[in-house]
Parts: sequence; structure tokens; C-alpha cells
Amino acid sequence: MRTFRLVIACPDRVGIVAKVSNLLATYNGWITEASHHSDNLSGWFFMRHEIRADSLPFDADGLRTVFAPIAREFGMEWRVSDSAERKKVVLMASRESHCLADLLHRFHSGELDCEITSVISNHEDLRSMVEWHGIPFHHVPVDPQNKAPAFDEVTRLVQEQNADCIVLARYMQILPASLCEQYAGRVINIHHSFLPSFVGARPYHQAAVRGVKLIGATCHYVTEELDAGPIIEQDVVRISHRDNVEDLVRLGKDVEKMVLSRGLRYHLEDRVVVHDNKTVVFS
Amino acid sequence: MRTFRLVIACPDRVGIVAKVSNLLATYNGWITEASHHSDNLSGWFFMRHEIRADSLPFDADGLRTVFAPIAREFGMEWRVSDSAERKKVVLMASRESHCLADLLHRFHSGELDCEITSVISNHEDLRSMVEWHGIPFHHVPVDPQNKAPAFDEVTRLVQEQNADCIVLARYMQILPASLCEQYAGRVINIHHSFLPSFVGARPYHQAAVRGVKLIGATCHYVTEELDAGPIIEQDVVRISHRDNVEDLVRLGKDVEKMVLSRGLRYHLEDRVVVHDNKTVVFS
Amino acid sequence: MRTFRLVIACPDRVGIVAKVSNLLATYNGWITEASHHSDNLSGWFFMRHEIRADSLPFDADGLRTVFAPIAREFGMEWRVSDSAERKKVVLMASRESHCLADLLHRFHSGELDCEITSVISNHEDLRSMVEWHGIPFHHVPVDPQNKAPAFDEVTRLVQEQNADCIVLARYMQILPASLCEQYAGRVINIHHSFLPSFVGARPYHQAAVRGVKLIGATCHYVTEELDAGPIIEQDVVRISHRDNVEDLVRLGKDVEKMVLSRGLRYHLEDRVVVHDNKTVVFS
Amino acid sequence: MRTFRLVIACPDRVGIVAKVSNLLATYNGWITEASHHSDNLSGWFFMRHEIRADSLPFDADGLRTVFAPIAREFGMEWRVSDSAERKKVVLMASRESHCLADLLHRFHSGELDCEITSVISNHEDLRSMVEWHGIPFHHVPVDPQNKAPAFDEVTRLVQEQNADCIVLARYMQILPASLCEQYAGRVINIHHSFLPSFVGARPYHQAAVRGVKLIGATCHYVTEELDAGPIIEQDVVRISHRDNVEDLVRLGKDVEKMVLSRGLRYHLEDRVVVHDNKTVVFS
Repeated sequence: MRTFRLVIACPDRVGIVAKVSNLLATYNGWITEASHHSDNLSGWFFMRHEIRADSLPFDADGLRTVFAPIAREFGMEWRVSDSAERKKVVLMASRESHCLADLLHRFHSGELDCEITSVISNHEDLRSMVEWHGIPFHHVPVDPQNKAPAFDEVTRLVQEQNADCIVLARYMQILPASLCEQYAGRVINIHHSFLPSFVGARPYHQAAVRGVKLIGATCHYVTEELDAGPIIEQDVVRISHRDNVEDLVRLGKDVEKMVLSRGLRYHLEDRVVVHDNKTVVFS
Repeated sequence: MRTFRLVIACPDRVGIVAKVSNLLATYNGWITEASHHSDNLSGWFFMRHEIRADSLPFDADGLRTVFAPIAREFGMEWRVSDSAERKKVVLMASRESHCLADLLHRFHSGELDCEITSVISNHEDLRSMVEWHGIPFHHVPVDPQNKAPAFDEVTRLVQEQNADCIVLARYMQILPASLCEQYAGRVINIHHSFLPSFVGARPYHQAAVRGVKLIGATCHYVTEELDAGPIIEQDVVRISHRDNVEDLVRLGKDVEKMVLSRGLRYHLEDRVVVHDNKTVVFS
Repeated sequence: MRTFRLVIACPDRVGIVAKVSNLLATYNGWITEASHHSDNLSGWFFMRHEIRADSLPFDADGLRTVFAPIAREFGMEWRVSDSAERKKVVLMASRESHCLADLLHRFHSGELDCEITSVISNHEDLRSMVEWHGIPFHHVPVDPQNKAPAFDEVTRLVQEQNADCIVLARYMQILPASLCEQYAGRVINIHHSFLPSFVGARPYHQAAVRGVKLIGATCHYVTEELDAGPIIEQDVVRISHRDNVEDLVRLGKDVEKMVLSRGLRYHLEDRVVVHDNKTVVFS
Repeated sequence: MRTFRLVIACPDRVGIVAKVSNLLATYNGWITEASHHSDNLSGWFFMRHEIRADSLPFDADGLRTVFAPIAREFGMEWRVSDSAERKKVVLMASRESHCLADLLHRFHSGELDCEITSVISNHEDLRSMVEWHGIPFHHVPVDPQNKAPAFDEVTRLVQEQNADCIVLARYMQILPASLCEQYAGRVINIHHSFLPSFVGARPYHQAAVRGVKLIGATCHYVTEELDAGPIIEQDVVRISHRDNVEDLVRLGKDVEKMVLSRGLRYHLEDRVVVHDNKTVVFS
């Protein structure tokens, strides 16, 4: 069923819901899902509506046109997206296959509603797996002494493919600040720890040294500061003294996969709103 | 902060949200929380609003008066409750103290927003614990050969105390059908299994015999059919071959406490709507 | 690191551990992992040792020879397996790809320590995925009116491949009793509910009708009675009123995959002992 | 059933299990539970046996006497404890009642196998609750400008009561280093975050600011460095954008209670061995 998703964020005040739902009712819009959130701390209001496209007398642009005056009146940050326009996603990976294979299978079986325009990797290892899924694979090696050319090529590919979203599926390289800024709120990373614990390199090793009893993974938007962007989703798994670092890596992979795929799904369905380096997730 | 809670259920159609939110906006109602659910299967719509009492020019009855025409128009089942009018709760227990002690502590520390009018038990064991909390304790023994007099007395006490809600905190007796009907949707039980597994007696023993790897608890509204009423909340805990029946009982107690207190909290805050022997829980 | 796994089950009595550990110490055996369990209910004792192969002066057969007298003395059910002899596994699937893809990826990335001799399916759909992994694919269609020829062919293939173990990765057909008996304790199924809830067909539909708040999956050994065999592993995921049957199916897939892969891993590493239709899992 | 618990830690080498189990078999010791762990990283070996007291021809001191030569031979850190000698526990609390009430109820209902010699608090608030349970309550106010006299009094009380163990049930004060050293491995704290995230003050506030999707609690032994001691147990609960700091505090309380009571139980049953600032927990 094709839907339009109307997502707004604005300073809270009386009458927002009435105004928006009136507008939708005026045009006979059939709301299939509605979510609201008033954040007491910041005084902001967040709302997401999913509306059956065939119930409205216009397309997404038509909805944008009639909605714009309300958005202005309330000072809203807002967007309307059309479920029929699948988001274009570039996946980036390195050598580890678990997150990439998981996303590719979900895509292949129709669970992930997007278009994967290509996979970019700094290694050749995963080419065959990607190409079996009918997706272009770009090998862009990164020279540790001179990374700029590689990231210029990555930027060129991402722009050429009109990507809406970049997913770092255990890419293991830090994207340049310019790319992060240009795609702010649209670069999704999976970090293999329960942030803010174990920022940076070798988090499973850090976890083993500290002797924690649960390990986790964090899906977050990438910002300039390493592993400090808005968190979309997290989860954990129980470990014990019997698990060495290799076991943590193995157990962690399953959490990473789950957390990344859930976070990406929320993003693709326009369920995530970022405010104050935090997320509202209308799951 | 005092709020009014408007909870509705009705056949789904276009314009409900607009109508309701318009009404609230007309009176300048400040919505602190709004939840919607359209059930595709049944074609019903469910909505819960929490509105700051001090933002409206009338009290709960005033809200009921202005809302009644809308309710009629849409054929709504509905209620308005006032957070300032704490629900009157009768707790019923037997000899096991864990659920009762947990609820009493939550009440005592201000976490459970209700009035506990009394505890009724078929045994004297828990009197001192109850009375320390300043709550009346009624010992109503149940004669296995002739249960009617006991339940007449229970019914009398419940009615005398104008109870809004009865909580069976491991009461271990089956309430008579007449009482269940009279308090339909207002008698909350905790069953010590993950229903519909292990209906009836000795669920932990049944679980041990079947060799399950997780055990659970289920908080549900009581109906005439044993352990078959609408489920409010459930949870589980992992067990292993090392755990014998006594261990299951011990581990299960913690799940029972958590599940019952969460379920009761949802009920007290008018977050639960029952339809088709299932619940919508706006948690 | 190559290890021998010594797994025993016998009536409990004093001196078993001493006898076994003495034997191992006599031959200078380096125990890397040891697990014990005394079951009070049945009076049985279970033990699993993992011993470095290079620490012993003989191979697995040598270990069997020196151990046999002890086994006789204590009336043990026992086995010695050699981690260097990877178990031969036949996977069976139907049209649903999620469990199969998950197992194939784990195998491909070296996480599942076994040999997958082939995939047998009653449909052609998954051939390409299987063959990309370099594994033979056998299409054995099942005629609903006359299933015997198909299962004769399945039996023939399984025997021809000297399979140690059959994994039903959402195969959706009931194996004939003869095959279950022949491979007792070696046919692993994933059932898409938290057994014993929702035995049989369409468990997610049953779960939606009952209105449970968690759904689950169960990995178990197949016995003649449907969905009643010894449970190896289970897990659950939280759902809510917002999730319709399609959502349950989607959410359930992730639990099925995880539970099946964990259960299979335990089996492959000889961590599971069956007794009285229940399992001891030395995880 | 009365048992002796033999807990050892020593550098790993061949023959330890044989030596120990031989000794126990010699005296006809009935082992009800046995757990082993070889830590590859440190090269240490850990073992815990639970032995029926009535199966041995001597008491705990007798067991110590016959075991001492083996302990010397293998350079073991070791202890024998007698389940009949319940550990003496001093609970310390401040104003928050949830952890204290939980522990007192578990004690009262026979679930926690220990003797609670007293509760020490820097406030009077919880006196009545403690005294209802028949446990002495000591009010030792702490002068922020001059804490030494208070901690001298605490130390005096702890010593006078021959405490085996001190439990900080949300005590909210930092114990002096001298007391931590004197009771090393015997002071148990509950920290209201998933360490190492959110060390120090106001962890729920820190969690809200960071926007994490799970909050947790950590039970650990207290060492001189704040919130950095060996972790015994941890757990988490899911939160969302709807939960403000007050909600986090409320939800977190349940995790704190569970984690502290599990951690204390492991300690009381001699299931925890500390090595390298980490724990082996034979749960």
C-alpha cells in the first residue's frame, strides 16, 4: 500500500495536531499510522503521519503545497516522503561480511524497502557476494598515507548515484568531515559496542579487559566527532567469563546485524527525527 | 501534573482524529501525550489523549459533556478519567508474599498512583506486612467444601470499598463467575507462565517436565475461562538444565513481580483498551 | 586447536569425576573445558570434557579404547568425537530463505564448523543461492497425494551422503517416522513459536489471535510426535498491538535464525545430551 | 541440604582436576555441583565444587586440613566455606528505599541465605522499614565538611558485627580507601548505569543527555578507583524518547534491584572469583 509520510518537528504549542489533522481530514486523508511526541526538556514537538496515497486527491508534491502554509505558521522542520519513491542507498564495507550479507539478504527477500545503488569497499573480498545479488561493486582502495584520492572517488560515486543515504556496514574507515556534513543525518554507522562505552578501536578487546557481562552494538548517524552522533538503535547480548575475545566477536556480530538492520529500517521508513544530537524513533 | 485521559475505541473512518483534536484545540487543551492505533484486521480505531487539566476551562465532567456528541456521532466506546481521582484498588493474596510486597513497596514509595483500599487474603500470614504499610487487612478464609460464603464476603468488601479494580497478586483461588462479570476488564491476574503455555495448576512443574529454556509470567484480565482473558503484559527469563523446579519458582517470582506491576501501572494510567479478547496497550 | 570431546550420561554415584579425571591425568590430557550436571530429579549425571588432542598419546579411537572399561563400570551412555572430523550436515528447506541464508553465510564465513553435504528442497527457488556457496542442491518435489517416493529419495540422498545430522531450516514438511527414528537425536527442526505454545500450523496467526506480547522460536530434535521433541534452544522478541501478522512473520524470522543457528552450533560441538525428552546443553 | 564449597584459583596445569576429585572420592564426597574454567589469556584455572557435608567424614576444618597439601602443591588461592555458616552482611543505604526493600524482602522470605547484622544509613528515613524486619538500624549521619568521624563509626560497627560483607544498597557516599582495602572483594556496590558508561554522578541524567536506547545497572566490588572495580553482574532495560529522566530513574530502579540481588546471591554462595580486576561467576 502506497503511503505518504509527513514528519514534522517544531516548538510545542497548542493546536498543532488540530491544524494538521484538520488539513488531512479536509482532503479526506486516511491516516494509517500517527505518532506524536512532546519533549518536555526541549519544549519541542514531533509528529509522524502515514497517509494512504490513494485517499488524497494529489501526489506528494500536492501534499507539500497544501501543507507549506501550516509549516510556516508553526516554524516547522518537516518533510513529506512517498513510499513509492524508494530511497537510494550506498553500502560501504571492508572485509567483514556479516553486516553486508545480512543487509543484502534482507534486500533480496524484499524486507528492506530501498534501492541499493552499489556497494563500495576498500577491499575486493566481497565482490562476488555483492554481484550475485545483482548489485554493482566498486573497489576503492584507501592508501593509508594518502586517503584523499579514495574519498574523492567515494564522494564522486555517491553523488553520481544520487544516494539518499550511506550505510557503513563495518567499513572500518573514518569518512572525511566534508562527506559527513554533506550527508548529515543520512550516514548510518554500526559501532560494535554499547556506546558510549568503548569508543574507538577494538571495542570487543576493551570489553574483555574491563570484564563486562553484556556486550552490545550501536547504530548511529555519523557526525564529525567519532562515535558521538545521534543513536538510532542499540542492543546487547549476555556474555560470561567463558567467552574470550573471539567469542565476543562472534556473539557481537549477531547483535551488530540486528541493530544495523533495525536502525536502517527505521531510517528508510522515515521513523527517525534528529534533535539536539538525539533521536526520536517512531518505531 | 493533573491530566485528563480521554480513551476511545470505535470503528475506523476518516476524520476521527481531526474531530477530536479540533474539539481539544477549541478549548485550548494542551495535549501532553497522544497515541493512535488503527487495527487493520478488525477495522477498529483506538486513541488515547492525555490533556493538562489546567489548560481546559472545565473539569472532567465538563470534558465529558462537550465530548459526548462526538462519541455518539462515531459510535465510540469511550471514557474520560481524571488523574487526580486515584483508582481504588483491592489487592488479593494468599500466602506467597513476593507480588504483594512488591506492589506495596511501589505504592509506599509513590510509584503506583492509586489508593489501595485493603488487602483480602484467605490466610493470616501477610497481615503484619500489610498493616505496616497502613493498609487494612481482611482475612477471609475459603472453605474448600463450601466456597460461596467466602466469596460473598469478598464481594461485600469489594463493593463496600467502591473498588475500581481487583488485583489477584497470586491469590491462588478462582473467583466466582458473577464477580468476574461484574468487574469485567477490572480484575487483573498474574499467571506464573508464559500463556498460552502451561494453563492451570503448577506451571513451573509443567515447564520443568517439558524442558523449556525460558519461563515467563502473564498479566491478564480475568474472564470466565481460566487463564484465557486478554493479555496485558508478559515477560520471560532464561533458565537452563541446572535449574530445578525450586529454582524456576525463585526465578519466576522476579518475572511475576515485574510483569504484574507493569500491567497494573498500564491499567491505572488508562493505557489499556480491550477489544476482541486482546489488548491495545499505549505504553 | 584440535580437541576430543568426551560426553557421558549415567546414573549418578560417587567417584565418577575422580575416575574420569584420573584417566585423563594418567595420559597427561589437557582439559580445555569441563562441564558437569547432576540431575536431582532423575538421579542422572552428565559430563562433557574437551581435551586437547595433541596432549594425548593416542587418537580418538585410542581414547575410546582406554575409556571403554570405565564406561562399562558406570553403565554410561557415552561418545568421543574428534573436532577434526567435521560433522556432515544435510540442510532441508522449502521456499523461505531466511534460515537457509543465515546458515549458509555462517558456514561460508567459517563460523559453523561442519560440512554441508547438500541442500534438499521441495522447490527450486533457492537453488542459485545454494550453488553460489558451492554446495550441491537437490530438488525433490513432494506430491501431496503420494509423499512416499519423495521421502524415499530424501532418505537415499541422506544415506548416500553419510549425513550425521539433518537440519530442517523451515522445510514445512513432516518427515516420515522411519527417518525420524533412524536419525533420532540428529534431526534438528526450527519451529516458529515458543513451544509448547502454538503447536502445528500457522503459529504466528495463532499468536496474533491470542494477543500475546512476545513471540518466539524453538529449536528442537524431531520426534514422532509433532513439535514435541526435546528442546535445544528458544528465544523470544517483544511485539505490540501495532504488529500485524506480517510484522510477526518478519520479526519472528530474526528469532528463528538466531535460535536455529545457536541450537545447531551446540549440536555440532557435542554440547547437547538428551535424556527423558529433555536436553542438557553445556553451552 | 548442608554443603561445603571449595573454591580455588591457580595457574593452570595438567592434573589439577584429577588431584582434587581423587581427594574428594577418597573420602566418598558427594559432589552436587562442579564448575571449571580455564582462562587462556591469563593461563589461570578456576574451580568450584559444592559437596554434601553429610557425605564427608569431617567438618569444614577437616576438609581444609586434608586439602591444604594439594593447595600448596599447585600454588592455589583457595577457600572452603560451609553453607551452614551464613555470611554476616551489613547493608548500607541512604534515602532511596528500592534496593533495600528488595533485599530485606528476599531475606525475610528466606531467599537470601545470610545474616543481616544491621543496616547503616546516613539518614533516618528507612528506620521503620528496617526495624519491621527485626534488623537493627544505625543512623550514622555524614558531615560533608568532616566525614572521618562518620566513617570511623561505620568501621567500628562493621568490625563489631564481624561482618563478612558490606552491601552498598544505593548508599550514595564514597567509602574511605582504608575500609575498601580492609574488605577488599567483600564490599558490593550497585551503580545505576551500565558501566563503564556513565561513571560517577547522575548517570540517568547523563544517559538522557546522550540519548542511549538502553539503560542499565552494574553490581561490582568496590575498589579505590570510583566505579572501576570487578563487575559481578549487569543488566539493561529498553527505553525510548518518550522516557524522561524521571522515567529512567523509575525503570532503572527495577534493574538495580535485580542486578544487586543477583550479584549478592552469587557472592553469598561463593560463586564469584576475582582475578585481574575481573570476575569468574559460576552461576
